[in-house]
Amino acid sequence: MNKITIDQLVEAALAEDIGSGDLTTEATVPASTPATGTIRTRETGVVAGLEVARHVFLRLDPGIHCEIRVRDGDRVEDGAVLAVVSGPARPILSGERVALNFLRHLSGIATRTRRLKELTAPFPVRLVDTRKTTPGLRVLEKYAVRMGGGHNHRFGLDDGVLIKDNHIAVAGSITAAVGAARQAVPHIFKVEVEIEDLAGVREALAAGVDVILLDNMSLTMIREAVAIVDGRVPVEVSGNVDEHSIGAIARTGVDIISVGKLTHSVPDLDIGLDLEPGGLIERDSQSR
Amino acid sequence: MNKITIDQLVEAALAEDIGSGDLTTEATVPASTPATGTIRTRETGVVAGLEVARHVFLRLDPGIHCEIRVRDGDRVEDGAVLAVVSGPARPILSGERVALNFLRHLSGIATRTRRLKELTAPFPVRLVDTRKTTPGLRVLEKYAVRMGGGHNHRFGLDDGVLIKDNHIAVAGSITAAVGAARQAVPHIFKVEVEIEDLAGVREALAAGVDVILLDNMSLTMIREAVAIVDGRVPVEVSGNVDEHSIGAIARTGVDIISVGKLTHSVPDLDIGLDLEPGGLIERDSQSR
Amino acid sequence: MNKITIDQLVEAALAEDIGSGDLTTEATVPASTPATGTIRTRETGVVAGLEVARHVFLRLDPGIHCEIRVRDGDRVEDGAVLAVVSGPARPILSGERVALNFLRHLSGIATRTRRLKELTAPFPVRLVDTRKTTPGLRVLEKYAVRMGGGHNHRFGLDDGVLIKDNHIAVAGSITAAVGAARQAVPHIFKVEVEIEDLAGVREALAAGVDVILLDNMSLTMIREAVAIVDGRVPVEVSGNVDEHSIGAIARTGVDIISVGKLTHSVPDLDIGLDLEPGGLIERDSQSR
Amino acid sequence: MNKITIDQLVEAALAEDIGSGDLTTEATVPASTPATGTIRTRETGVVAGLEVARHVFLRLDPGIHCEIRVRDGDRVEDGAVLAVVSGPARPILSGERVALNFLRHLSGIATRTRRLKELTAPFPVRLVDTRKTTPGLRVLEKYAVRMGGGHNHRFGLDDGVLIKDNHIAVAGSITAAVGAARQAVPHIFKVEVEIEDLAGVREALAAGVDVILLDNMSLTMIREAVAIVDGRVPVEVSGNVDEHSIGAIARTGVDIISVGKLTHSVPDLDIGLDLEPGGLIERDSQSR
Amino acid sequence: MNKITIDQLVEAALAEDIGSGDLTTEATVPASTPATGTIRTRETGVVAGLEVARHVFLRLDPGIHCEIRVRDGDRVEDGAVLAVVSGPARPILSGERVALNFLRHLSGIATRTRRLKELTAPFPVRLVDTRKTTPGLRVLEKYAVRMGGGHNHRFGLDDGVLIKDNHIAVAGSITAAVGAARQAVPHIFKVEVEIEDLAGVREALAAGVDVILLDNMSLTMIREAVAIVDGRVPVEVSGNVDEHSIGAIARTGVDIISVGKLTHSVPDLDIGLDLEPGGLIERDSQSR
Amino acid sequence: MNKITIDQLVEAALAEDIGSGDLTTEATVPASTPATGTIRTRETGVVAGLEVARHVFLRLDPGIHCEIRVRDGDRVEDGAVLAVVSGPARPILSGERVALNFLRHLSGIATRTRRLKELTAPFPVRLVDTRKTTPGLRVLEKYAVRMGGGHNHRFGLDDGVLIKDNHIAVAGSITAAVGAARQAVPHIFKVEVEIEDLAGVREALAAGVDVILLDNMSLTMIREAVAIVDGRVPVEVSGNVDEHSIGAIARTGVDIISVGKLTHSVPDLDIGLDLEPGGLIERDSQSR
Repeated sequence: MNKITIDQLVEAALAEDIGSGDLTTEATVPASTPATGTIRTRETGVVAGLEVARHVFLRLDPGIHCEIRVRDGDRVEDGAVLAVVSGPARPILSGERVALNFLRHLSGIATRTRRLKELTAPFPVRLVDTRKTTPGLRVLEKYAVRMGGGHNHRFGLDDGVLIKDNHIAVAGSITAAVGAARQAVPHIFKVEVEIEDLAGVREALAAGVDVILLDNMSLTMIREAVAIVDGRVPVEVSGNVDEHSIGAIARTGVDIISVGKLTHSVPDLDIGLDLEPGGLIERDSQSR
Repeated sequence: MNKITIDQLVEAALAEDIGSGDLTTEATVPASTPATGTIRTRETGVVAGLEVARHVFLRLDPGIHCEIRVRDGDRVEDGAVLAVVSGPARPILSGERVALNFLRHLSGIATRTRRLKELTAPFPVRLVDTRKTTPGLRVLEKYAVRMGGGHNHRFGLDDGVLIKDNHIAVAGSITAAVGAARQAVPHIFKVEVEIEDLAGVREALAAGVDVILLDNMSLTMIREAVAIVDGRVPVEVSGNVDEHSIGAIARTGVDIISVGKLTHSVPDLDIGLDLEPGGLIERDSQSR
Repeated sequence: MNKITIDQLVEAALAEDIGSGDLTTEATVPASTPATGTIRTRETGVVAGLEVARHVFLRLDPGIHCEIRVRDGDRVEDGAVLAVVSGPARPILSGERVALNFLRHLSGIATRTRRLKELTAPFPVRLVDTRKTTPGLRVLEKYAVRMGGGHNHRFGLDDGVLIKDNHIAVAGSITAAVGAARQAVPHIFKVEVEIEDLAGVREALAAGVDVILLDNMSLTMIREAVAIVDGRVPVEVSGNVDEHSIGAIARTGVDIISVGKLTHSVPDLDIGLDLEPGGLIERDSQSR
Repeated sequence: MNKITIDQLVEAALAEDIGSGDLTTEATVPASTPATGTIRTRETGVVAGLEVARHVFLRLDPGIHCEIRVRDGDRVEDGAVLAVVSGPARPILSGERVALNFLRHLSGIATRTRRLKELTAPFPVRLVDTRKTTPGLRVLEKYAVRMGGGHNHRFGLDDGVLIKDNHIAVAGSITAAVGAARQAVPHIFKVEVEIEDLAGVREALAAGVDVILLDNMSLTMIREAVAIVDGRVPVEVSGNVDEHSIGAIARTGVDIISVGKLTHSVPDLDIGLDLEPGGLIERDSQSR
Repeated sequence: MNKITIDQLVEAALAEDIGSGDLTTEATVPASTPATGTIRTRETGVVAGLEVARHVFLRLDPGIHCEIRVRDGDRVEDGAVLAVVSGPARPILSGERVALNFLRHLSGIATRTRRLKELTAPFPVRLVDTRKTTPGLRVLEKYAVRMGGGHNHRFGLDDGVLIKDNHIAVAGSITAAVGAARQAVPHIFKVEVEIEDLAGVREALAAGVDVILLDNMSLTMIREAVAIVDGRVPVEVSGNVDEHSIGAIARTGVDIISVGKLTHSVPDLDIGLDLEPGGLIERDSQSR
Repeated sequence: MNKITIDQLVEAALAEDIGSGDLTTEATVPASTPATGTIRTRETGVVAGLEVARHVFLRLDPGIHCEIRVRDGDRVEDGAVLAVVSGPARPILSGERVALNFLRHLSGIATRTRRLKELTAPFPVRLVDTRKTTPGLRVLEKYAVRMGGGHNHRFGLDDGVLIKDNHIAVAGSITAAVGAARQAVPHIFKVEVEIEDLAGVREALAAGVDVILLDNMSLTMIREAVAIVDGRVPVEVSGNVDEHSIGAIARTGVDIISVGKLTHSVPDLDIGLDLEPGGLIERDSQSR
């Protein structure tokens, strides 16, 4: 993740939550009060988004010090200290919720990804995400997938080619659709096609696709498709993938498994911030 | 929700997903091809976000016609038709994922809210959300909570007063914090205080709070607190509320139950779009 | 005020005034010329906006040093030094007008608020603003009201409930409107109703409103209304409030007086910047 | 004013006031209720900003019909109907305050400008504004000055040259500053210099300035300066101009009088909107 | 190109050029004057950007009618009519320059692309652009390349993998860099490596790259590299490609030639707008 | 150029190029790798945009050190070192293309301007640009013209008056158009008129224009026009100005020559960045 992306997302989130000001904190906490906050997990999981959380506090007050104690992608136990935030109490209190909303959500994604990844551990299969992401957060969510040990599929409609059933229906055939895409799109993209039956697998191979995506196929059909492809191109599987089915799917010999639920319907990882009064306020804090 | 809010969120989401263009669709689908898409549920739930989905398609091409068949807040069965989208195939294909990402996520929130609401049905209790929302989507998520039958707590730090333990610690006491808030904040806001024990309940009442929030208390303590308050101010409960506990909590006689999981860790409602070629393209479509 | 709000308003104001560059200054003042500017009042009043003015100069050049000498909310005499700005002459000259436009306008609001506040001094009444603010500047103007000793009414239509005559007309009655609002809006907001006659006061009380707003009533009617309410809820008065009437209104025993003219039709406080060549340019100045 | 400018200012103002939604109106007014609002003056003055007000309502709901009855720049009596707004009641109520805030402020500027303009009526003098405008609203405020019969001075630091005392102090002399400006700035700009004594007038003329600005001079000195210039270049006067002094200043024979108070410290023109239920809602309204 | 991209670029360009208003046109052309403008080429070339030009006029006034007479990608002779714009004269005059600035620049790119494309006509080679584009205009410039008959290379650093000499230097070897990229990046991207000598070609093939980019090689070396690769992966050539060399390079049998000068250092295609008074103003024009 | 302008353009350009991240660099270069890049010319020319290039790197990582070795406006030989960039390798690699795209384009403009300027060297003529600029980059391109030794014409339609043939056609005559402009526009702007024949020159002088623009006239006609004007107002020439004709035009005695090709159709100046591993990473780098 680059600085610009983080800056823009953090600014939007703070504007949404704080708006014209934190009424309660400004009424009850003097500007001169220092505080120290400890960000801790409340369950075991994989962390992602620490740099984003740090930016939340720095954007509110560059005089806050945020010391990060673990790395994104680390698996941490319940109660682990992720970061320590110290400085003026007001911006720490005002930024707490936004920082945690990012951190809990992204760590939730990293945690689910790691769990599914581990279930495929014996097999040389790549676990990838989809475009089923939360509007506005795709770049962060896909980052969290990587921190969990997964890989990303395309980021958007403009940076990858995936021919689906509707495209094939309009183009007339797999062959026609693949040919049109090959001709039109940049040579740096592979042409991937979503296939629903074994005849389709054969047609796609003949048409020269680079990746075959088997959508919603049974294990039996997947195995047959893998046999037909026989290593000529990578085979991806999607549809009905969950904790129960992913091991068996990985065992079929496919190369890639894509799972929408890496980024949607994901429970947060429970993470909190415990605040204690005290500490020093740096000279260049916003609060002066 | 007002038009400006929807317009801005939709524009950002489309920019994120489509970027410089939908490579696959532009390569395989001629600009002149018409199509009709039917948006259907794939499981039973409560719908929210139909107007947002409609705006997604209209923003890409004002010549698309999107006919909405049910209302936000309606409970629909698996397979129900929510809307029918017709016009040029290209922008329908390009907008499909963004429209569904909004609709699935918001309907997931409405569905969970409705379910929890029903579990409190015998009791005159208000189910409310929190600030544990997805960065950038708070206004939509809180709308979905209302569509599910819930109510909203404050929107952000600037439009409500909620004195928490950290504020009390700095202010010195509940009495001091409530007094400071009452003096400083606009008179249109009630002053709510988060309380952790029964002594706190008594102090808060004496300090003249408007709402008492019991945080992470046992059922026994909640019942005692309700007895102490005795109807003088509304009592809200938060912490450890889920499908199993919410009925018992509602039975204690509290007025309000706040649940972070109305808006975080929520599974999508499964909704899809089935496309069929055909239909008419209106004269003022973007695609000319 | 938080840093994000100030940053965004300052950036927009500078873009508006400086655009592609300060032609005159770039033509006549070498980049290496240092200068020191003293910001002084030219009449007696209450100051507000010093931090905003400081941000104006820092946004143009982080190497400018701006030392603030008084505090927002201080009453200062004619000729008082509010701040001293030193660094490269170019950005000080280019930022002068924008800094003063903010500071003069906000200090004008603080000054008028203080004056009206003092006129109500013998009485325990709260002086509040309205939504009659300058488009784009509401958050700053409401801050200036607080610095003047006033309080804020709601910030916008989304963070407070105020039922006016038109709402009542559509809802059918005060009772119906209050009931609908109580049911729909978050429990953290009080329900306030604008009332035009004494029957309305009685109906509103019966309907359980939290605040009564008496609009454009005579002193006699206000007194009667206060007697009817008898301390059960706060009473607010609006309409025809000015320097001449506010004392008598405060004497009626109302709790809150709202005055649109706290934020509109307000004369600037006369404040200027006197520049002298000389001083040091810091190493990390933008001007290198 | 062009459409883009109006669109952007209106969008920002609505976002500021409405935020996540108009709580009161949504709670008490059904979406299907139609209404008609009449915008009327409550005192005599000059109108400016009607098109801006119209855009406010259309931005909230393109189905609102806003019929404008007078023209910007018209002088209207107390009680005059400026516009009639009809359509769904909700967006009319939600947009009322923002529309009026623009209209009252801009009409206040037009009214003051017209009054000062009339006081100079016997003399061929141009009344112009300054850069003492409200941050963010300069383009609208300068438009209102024109509607009042005034003219605009430069819009910002990038589209005009005005050499002030500080520039002269750094450049070394009027002659040096004028020479530097003449050399550096685009030939389409005149070079104007602010002068404080009669020796300065002579030096400026010798240096070949295009416009002379006499700052804070007595009437006697202004007369002498006018005699010295003798029609060779236009003479502008600024400083201490108000309703009492402007006539005498105009009589001195100067060509231009600039007045900061055309755009700052200006009282609103009192304008209100009276709403009546009833009327029709157009088919393409946002409220469907 | 999608509507959102065009809308945003057009809005920014108009704001840059028109700012607070078109002084000359507002002073000399009454709002009620209609006009018709004809957009014509003044030299032979390939057109691109007509839809963008149309949006320029519609953004200023939705009542303008813009009839497009040829298609982007068409080769047109000197004097050809590209579009006819009719409606109120003011917005046509105000938008003319921005519309032409887009159209001339994009048509210049399409024209150069077509010319280079034709020089490679006998050979089955793909002509592609680079990231040497004008900041802010990449999406339009890459669109113009396609209209000229070229193809696009990656859009940005986030949607394609191109390992250059610096990456290889840090990674230690071509093999290491390719391995790292293959492991880390999404499977939908091919891995392309920039190679400077024949040993590098062999190492890259052994490392399993998907595309080989020969940078700044002589014709002789290119021919040898093509022979080594022998059709196993596509071969791209870059560096020192111009009108004189491209034919010989194409003849070597490479698959792709990338040319930075498709998008930088490109002369505009000369296109103008001839205006005639007259025509009708539509009822919903902005100018009313 | 002021800091705000540079910041905004740099941010937009980086967002366009880097998007969600630099895939290749993140895959192949460890975050801890330091590097030093040297920015060198690859041909002789005039440099412009070094500060912009510096901001590109600092925006990606404030810990990068960018030492600028020459000044904008300097004429440099092939191979000259313009700047040295040191710090973490990742952001240097990711920012290289954007920094060079700005620097090459702006230096190309400065170089062409200097060349044309030198061709007019014996004559006291001012070389100026036009509004034929790249959408979005006008402020930078006009800055580059100044660095090349040229001057700017107006920045946009809002900061200068230029009456063209279409304005005259609608206004009825040169006299009418000049009179209308003189009356309406700010007094700080000169009134310039585009003239096509000698009768027009005489009418314009009689109407009191401030600048005469001779458009597309032959050398003979230009000479006659200069004789008619006889020094009363500046004379500008535009149309068909190139390296071959500019000397002869300058010799006619005109005061100003405007050339659209200063800012359009300009070849980049060839500038590159050579990277070497090594160097130090500062403590506050973004990359930690």
